[in-house]
Amino acid sequence: MTSQFEIIYALDLLGTVAFAASGALAGVRRGMDLLGVVVLGIVTATGGGVVRDLLLNDTPPFCFKNELYLYLALAASIVVFLTPRSFERMNRAMLLLDALGLGTFLVIGTSKALNYHLGFMGAVIMGVMTATCGGLIRDTLSNEIPLILQREIYASACAVGGALFYLFYRLGLPSEVNLTVSAATVIAIRCTAILKGWQLPRGKVL
Amino acid sequence: MTSQFEIIYALDLLGTVAFAASGALAGVRRGMDLLGVVVLGIVTATGGGVVRDLLLNDTPPFCFKNELYLYLALAASIVVFLTPRSFERMNRAMLLLDALGLGTFLVIGTSKALNYHLGFMGAVIMGVMTATCGGLIRDTLSNEIPLILQREIYASACAVGGALFYLFYRLGLPSEVNLTVSAATVIAIRCTAILKGWQLPRGKVL
Amino acid sequence: MTSQFEIIYALDLLGTVAFAASGALAGVRRGMDLLGVVVLGIVTATGGGVVRDLLLNDTPPFCFKNELYLYLALAASIVVFLTPRSFERMNRAMLLLDALGLGTFLVIGTSKALNYHLGFMGAVIMGVMTATCGGLIRDTLSNEIPLILQREIYASACAVGGALFYLFYRLGLPSEVNLTVSAATVIAIRCTAILKGWQLPRGKVL
Repeated sequence: MTSQFEIIYALDLLGTVAFAASGALAGVRRGMDLLGVVVLGIVTATGGGVVRDLLLNDTPPFCFKNELYLYLALAASIVVFLTPRSFERMNRAMLLLDALGLGTFLVIGTSKALNYHLGFMGAVIMGVMTATCGGLIRDTLSNEIPLILQREIYASACAVGGALFYLFYRLGLPSEVNLTVSAATVIAIRCTAILKGWQLPRGKVL
Repeated sequence: MTSQFEIIYALDLLGTVAFAASGALAGVRRGMDLLGVVVLGIVTATGGGVVRDLLLNDTPPFCFKNELYLYLALAASIVVFLTPRSFERMNRAMLLLDALGLGTFLVIGTSKALNYHLGFMGAVIMGVMTATCGGLIRDTLSNEIPLILQREIYASACAVGGALFYLFYRLGLPSEVNLTVSAATVIAIRCTAILKGWQLPRGKVL
Repeated sequence: MTSQFEIIYALDLLGTVAFAASGALAGVRRGMDLLGVVVLGIVTATGGGVVRDLLLNDTPPFCFKNELYLYLALAASIVVFLTPRSFERMNRAMLLLDALGLGTFLVIGTSKALNYHLGFMGAVIMGVMTATCGGLIRDTLSNEIPLILQREIYASACAVGGALFYLFYRLGLPSEVNLTVSAATVIAIRCTAILKGWQLPRGKVL
């Protein structure tokens, strides 16, 4: 049992590093200075969970209770600042790590929302926000329309995973099985979408 | 008595649909995919009230306690995604519904702030935020300078309505009369401003 | 003793006026109307403290408990709206006032975070956010990449001051000495950076 939660925690930390690296890279690309890169890295890595904890009123948010998240995001951002090219080259590995983080953050957020007795929409939204709000703030601060709003199967993979988690939860599936299956579903959808180039339909241009 | 609050609730739901439609339309215009359009619709419809509830520490925010708001916003966004042209054509009706929502959200926010013992500025600001923060987040996510900051009598109609509500509240006017008169004032100012093309003065360009 | 805290309070109010003026000026430059200018002024002046209070769950945030902050920001914004040119001419004085506000907001935020038992990273981040989030929201609403992420020694002066405050706090330095020394350090770094044109290193453009 415990080992299951330890795996989730390990994936959570790994996802934090991957998200911080993606935020820091966005900062380097925009010509930001060291502090800007660090801020963008930390915000991308922790922003989703912070927004979730604010909405659930669990304060101070998770990363202020366990500063390991902040130190990891700080370290990852500094490494990216010093050697951005090596991360650019590891593009495939980065996308995979990002997908791992996405699935992990989703199940953590949805699971926490259910502990706070939220309903179906609330649980799915909290999961999706945990997984995507960091990237959304990153893009807003970089003065871009958030990627998650415009292309690819990203937040929608999270929405599917969140709905699945809610269903299994109501069906009484053991928490550790549910966490694994739902996270794996998000990761699988996301990875397949990248490989196959899947996209959601767009609205008809007016 | 009760019927008065039922009318406010009905207007609140109607305003939610109108705001969601305006957010979803903005998403379609920007070429967002289905999920982006839904996110923008829900955020526009509920963002103001969520920010208010966070500041007043009434968590989880209203739409997570009564998910009807979320389902309505979701449904409205999907309808707009499927048939955006018909909403474009109903431009006049949409503006009227939006004005209804504006007045309703304003009195709900100001009234709630007074229940939380905020002062004059706090009550007016909470009302204005409830009515306008959803649109502000919509425009920020669409990478535009928020409309409410730059043109037309929109947030300023809310500020007038909020001040009026505060005044009547201090004068001891019954809550249901105050809700009606203040909301009607906002709606009347907003509609007249649209018809007459009223604008606030701008600063001298430097 | 008391007088020390009175000085901090006076500097806090002065910083509020300076930050409101910078926000209002940004609004005038963008051609916003009176209400937009006022909103941008108030948000710039109070946004950092509001975000800090939300994260620490001290609600309603400071400026709703003591509306003097809101009235001062409102008044400063209106004055800027009416006579923007005179503020443009006082550019040097404005930068100095802004630096005073920066140092004051930093020590207030870091000190409050320590009262809430946050760790090193949390205390520094709360201080930096208190001092810079207002400007960050101002730039985001003005549809610009936040200045603090891209140039000059600004947020980084705060980070140094916050780390210093934490160190002195752990060493048991009296609070009033710590407040003064740490705030003065931030102000000195910021002013020297302006005079000497110091900048942080940027990442290598990819």
